[in-house]
Amino acid sequence: MTDRRLVSATERVFNFSPGPAVLPLPVLERAREEMLSLPGVGISVLEISHRSPAFDRILEETLQELRGLVGIGNDHEVVLLQGGASLQFSMVPMNLLRGVNRPADSIITGTWGATGLKEARREGKVHVAWDGAATHYDRLPAPDEIKLSTNPAYVHMTSNETIQGVQWKNEPEVGDAPLVCDCSSDFLSRPIDISKYGLVYACAQKNAGIAGVTAVIIRKDLLERSRDDLPSMLDYRTHVKNDSRPNTPPVFAVYIFGLVCRWVRENMGGLASMARHNVAKAQLLYDVIDASGGFFSGHARPDCRSDMNVTFHLPNEALEQEFISCAAQRGLVELKGHRSVGGIRASIYNAMPVPGVECLRDCMVDFQSAHASQAGLKTQS
Amino acid sequence: MTDRRLVSATERVFNFSPGPAVLPLPVLERAREEMLSLPGVGISVLEISHRSPAFDRILEETLQELRGLVGIGNDHEVVLLQGGASLQFSMVPMNLLRGVNRPADSIITGTWGATGLKEARREGKVHVAWDGAATHYDRLPAPDEIKLSTNPAYVHMTSNETIQGVQWKNEPEVGDAPLVCDCSSDFLSRPIDISKYGLVYACAQKNAGIAGVTAVIIRKDLLERSRDDLPSMLDYRTHVKNDSRPNTPPVFAVYIFGLVCRWVRENMGGLASMARHNVAKAQLLYDVIDASGGFFSGHARPDCRSDMNVTFHLPNEALEQEFISCAAQRGLVELKGHRSVGGIRASIYNAMPVPGVECLRDCMVDFQSAHASQAGLKTQS
Repeated sequence: MTDRRLVSATERVFNFSPGPAVLPLPVLERAREEMLSLPGVGISVLEISHRSPAFDRILEETLQELRGLVGIGNDHEVVLLQGGASLQFSMVPMNLLRGVNRPADSIITGTWGATGLKEARREGKVHVAWDGAATHYDRLPAPDEIKLSTNPAYVHMTSNETIQGVQWKNEPEVGDAPLVCDCSSDFLSRPIDISKYGLVYACAQKNAGIAGVTAVIIRKDLLERSRDDLPSMLDYRTHVKNDSRPNTPPVFAVYIFGLVCRWVRENMGGLASMARHNVAKAQLLYDVIDASGGFFSGHARPDCRSDMNVTFHLPNEALEQEFISCAAQRGLVELKGHRSVGGIRASIYNAMPVPGVECLRDCMVDFQSAHASQAGLKTQS
Repeated sequence: MTDRRLVSATERVFNFSPGPAVLPLPVLERAREEMLSLPGVGISVLEISHRSPAFDRILEETLQELRGLVGIGNDHEVVLLQGGASLQFSMVPMNLLRGVNRPADSIITGTWGATGLKEARREGKVHVAWDGAATHYDRLPAPDEIKLSTNPAYVHMTSNETIQGVQWKNEPEVGDAPLVCDCSSDFLSRPIDISKYGLVYACAQKNAGIAGVTAVIIRKDLLERSRDDLPSMLDYRTHVKNDSRPNTPPVFAVYIFGLVCRWVRENMGGLASMARHNVAKAQLLYDVIDASGGFFSGHARPDCRSDMNVTFHLPNEALEQEFISCAAQRGLVELKGHRSVGGIRASIYNAMPVPGVECLRDCMVDFQSAHASQAGLKTQS
């Protein structure tokens, strides 16, 4: 963030922030172009009424793009909410757990799962079906390690844990229980079979847009669980009935969300293509880690490491700090790992371009060459 | 919205929308300028981490500007939340009413007060101290009409009702009870003596910025009422303790909020000057209404009509529809009154420039000249 070369409003660095995160340049350029006036409207998108024909069109196009991109059928409703995934930690159990006399189950694979669990327990009974805390959330459970209760109200999981860099590759087997997934950090990064899910939620500021809007995809039959005494704004039915605008929605965040969906379809070829792209980017970094002879050591085990957040350590904290400084000199920023895990975290969401990842890869290789001998470790060839 | 002349992304109309609403042009221009990269940072404000030094600075400057502009002292905390004023309809009683064994009182002067009452009653007991429904919310109560309960948990009011166009000019007398005010539609439009309030909340998209962020100003002692079983994100203490970012805040909406605060101070001379400006703008329209001999008839009674939302009728609905069309031909848009009141509503918040109001005034005068005789009414001289 302090690279001395940066002075203008057009030069850009490579931003590895875990979220809010890098956005596609065409999306930023479009937003800039329309900042004073939406063509044909004469009003900025920041100023249009949420009941205007201009926003009708934006909202409709955004939801259509999202439904088409993800493949959301008629069994599921889609709403765009405020409050982030953190508010969903409460809204999910408020809506799906208060109405039933059974516990919810939760599979905890990292910090966000654990945080959500605490909130869910304020609303009702939750059974922990598996918790990876014993090994610092470096892995996923084997199928036979997941101990579901007899008839859970739902089973909650986190598809990708940004802090530890652990990502599910396939859904766990949960029988007839509705699967509820916090997809905040890998939503729109790969195909997802929505028919397997009761509810999916995702804040936008990783792969799908800017902070301030959260997508919730919910199977229609689950809406019947919400009780009438819920605060209106926390009742999913309010948002479904009112097309995501019972009150003023975050208009600009919805607009950017729509532009990003369109970019994934038009520029990146849809979710299957997007996923190939993302896997290839992550592989560039994991190859360096795997070939480093231990100079770089991944936090997550290889079979469950994330294509979104590449987490690793160097031999000691001083070297990690030096690496972060060296990277900043090359215009690679926001690489510091979360304080609870330490080390390095490179978040390489959809919009991180390949050249950014290549720069980081080169920086890692060069850094190891320069420092491996002093740490008593081998240099990459 | 359908003016045929508008085709480019730079031409702008005069937007009388009740919110989201017109923004200051310098704010839009600044946002456009920095859309690809914050100078010295190399990252768009849409992409910066909420834990980055760049956002630290934006948040700190925004809160400082707000505190300075409004005159918020050390007795009150300020937090910036998501969910709009509608979520505050629930959060206020969740935090301030659940913890006490007394009812809250509510003074209902329009649609928003009535909507908030419904939500508050889901959380606890509420006594209606006055309700203007009998005369379609066209007036404020006289002091002796307000029937407070003995020792209310708080007294809720709405400083300006956007739909009816009714605005308080001074605070009602509520004794020792904390006064809680929904200031959504006149916040930053005039000075406010925060020391008289227990809690003030205001969504940004009228006078203070864009949809997606809501300011809450709360007297510190009231924070002690919140109970520990509240969902974290709905507990004011969570946001106070974590400087408005327990999770990812709506970064861009906060940034615009800060730019608008600075514009009010630097360009408009602060709140006292802003208020004179707003009163003068409203007077331009009320003068036409008052001199129209009944051709234009205000919804709100003259002693409580709003400087923010000028609501009026024409002799019949057909003329109202024609007036809206004529205004649109002059580039004056979003003038249709709310369906519950009908007629015309001109929202002339802080950022509506004087030329916009003058155009509307001229349009009204010309329209009356052209149509008064056919409606059997006199022409303005």
